[in-house]
Amino acid sequence: MSDKQNLSVAEVHERALSQLVSKGFSHVQADAIAATVTAGERDGCLSHGLFRIPFYIGALRNERVNPKANPEVIEKAASSVVHVNGHDGFCPAALRVGYEPVMAKAKERGIAALAIHNVYNIAALWPEVEFLAQQGFVAFAFTGANAFVAPAGGTQPLFGTNPMAFGWPRGDKPPLVFDQASSVCARGEIQLMKQEGKRLPDGLAIDADGQPTNDPDAALAGAQLPFGGHKGSSIALMIELLAGALIGDAFSFESTEMDVNKIGAPFGGEFLMVIDPSHGALPGAQANHQARAEQLFGKILEQEGTRLPSERRYQMREKSLAEGLWVSEFSDS
Amino acid sequence: MSDKQNLSVAEVHERALSQLVSKGFSHVQADAIAATVTAGERDGCLSHGLFRIPFYIGALRNERVNPKANPEVIEKAASSVVHVNGHDGFCPAALRVGYEPVMAKAKERGIAALAIHNVYNIAALWPEVEFLAQQGFVAFAFTGANAFVAPAGGTQPLFGTNPMAFGWPRGDKPPLVFDQASSVCARGEIQLMKQEGKRLPDGLAIDADGQPTNDPDAALAGAQLPFGGHKGSSIALMIELLAGALIGDAFSFESTEMDVNKIGAPFGGEFLMVIDPSHGALPGAQANHQARAEQLFGKILEQEGTRLPSERRYQMREKSLAEGLWVSEFSDS
Repeated sequence: MSDKQNLSVAEVHERALSQLVSKGFSHVQADAIAATVTAGERDGCLSHGLFRIPFYIGALRNERVNPKANPEVIEKAASSVVHVNGHDGFCPAALRVGYEPVMAKAKERGIAALAIHNVYNIAALWPEVEFLAQQGFVAFAFTGANAFVAPAGGTQPLFGTNPMAFGWPRGDKPPLVFDQASSVCARGEIQLMKQEGKRLPDGLAIDADGQPTNDPDAALAGAQLPFGGHKGSSIALMIELLAGALIGDAFSFESTEMDVNKIGAPFGGEFLMVIDPSHGALPGAQANHQARAEQLFGKILEQEGTRLPSERRYQMREKSLAEGLWVSEFSDS
Repeated sequence: MSDKQNLSVAEVHERALSQLVSKGFSHVQADAIAATVTAGERDGCLSHGLFRIPFYIGALRNERVNPKANPEVIEKAASSVVHVNGHDGFCPAALRVGYEPVMAKAKERGIAALAIHNVYNIAALWPEVEFLAQQGFVAFAFTGANAFVAPAGGTQPLFGTNPMAFGWPRGDKPPLVFDQASSVCARGEIQLMKQEGKRLPDGLAIDADGQPTNDPDAALAGAQLPFGGHKGSSIALMIELLAGALIGDAFSFESTEMDVNKIGAPFGGEFLMVIDPSHGALPGAQANHQARAEQLFGKILEQEGTRLPSERRYQMREKSLAEGLWVSEFSDS
């Protein structure tokens, strides 16, 4: 394919970084964003891969966005909640400065939290829980989005597609990780079905009048539905409370209200909880969380048809690291 | 109705307590169990109400169960994870001794955890998160069960119906609480449909060969399905890891294996996380988590057809407190 070239994962990172810097991002912001989009591309999560770079660049049309923000860690010795003020930059750079202090607190005290404030967040959540799990911690991450999802029983968009991610350490193996939206499907999937002229399966969305719809346009003008009915709706609500009310950042509906130019980069916060599993077992009992978990994973995998969350992503990663990535010329967006 | 009598909530508690004591439970164990079953009865959650007492009494047929266990708190000053060894008694009494120390740590440090070990747990989880939220904390609770649920894509029961509960403080109002199984429906609902000779709706269960079934008997012999497909399955897995591997207690499939007499009381642990929301906002910013959350709740309720989780339970509670409860004679089971 003449318009695609084979690059190593490191080369993809370098090119993403240069492109962002050329558009006005500081090295701090650009390098963290390049890492997350490169990871997405590498792992076959293309909707969070290089495809996202134009969204980051497009977000600069919003005057409040600061592409040179220096995220600032604010912590009190007595508190196990580490804060990072993102100063209106993007989430990836803010996370990077928060990891060390939150891991130090979790190690000492068994459990700690990281609150990321005042950031634009258009990345997936799995990179952060995977990183923390690689360092041996159990990790949770929650963030809002823009208002696209109706609460169970309701008819109007209010919640974001609100992902939650969870990571579990597996020693030398890549961590067990899941990262799932509180909506039945990602918004991008509906946009894709629209592009392809397809009808939506049942149960994904309602139209502007609150009626079930299979028409992608009507769905995009209406509301997506939470996964699993009222149970997914409760999880979406919990995420609004954690990443919004608890840490004093915006709810998804407020992020939408603030986005007057319809740029689409959600503004708000992210909340993480980090556990050092060496504090988990009853003192005196043998701590063997890892071996125990592997026993459970074995029981899952002995059933035909199952797989562990993130398995496919790690397979794609291995391939990408071995064979490089075929990517289009980096475009000026 | 000649076989029912009207009792106050306090009288129901007293009778439940006496009945349990007469069957060999210590006051410590019996009072905590009486509180949880009375709360269920009072709130209209009848499957966790007085209906449960025979399950507690029946569990004594398992020789390992200790109806006089004195739960023991084990904590290290440096760690924010408080442990309670339930010593093979029931969960409600173990929770009671854990509340004060975990709230003290959460207050001082912003976030803390409570690990309940070696207990039989046949209660709902909402009483604990409601209690913690009434004291001003944000709370999560997770526990396994017996192996009834197939992992997504699989055909055999492995996970428990694994509930997770979440509580959010609302000042003078009762807390926002949800408590939801990771299966599409509670096991009791399938048992009830069997009793009533009804067919199951689609999507609840598979038979012993892994095929979808609408027959309650086939479903009970097969496996229940997680809610929301692979997303609910991931949540069930997370709960196994938290309440099992992390804290060194049994997985749901092990609880089933240990239950050689098929008594059905799940044995294992419970894991809770407790957050003091005054640590949540960016230091220097005005902490107003409660007012912010009320704003979101208002937005939900202005949509026709919605309600907040636990709303119906609180309505039933108000009625029960005002009018008393109509209960059958306490039976000797």
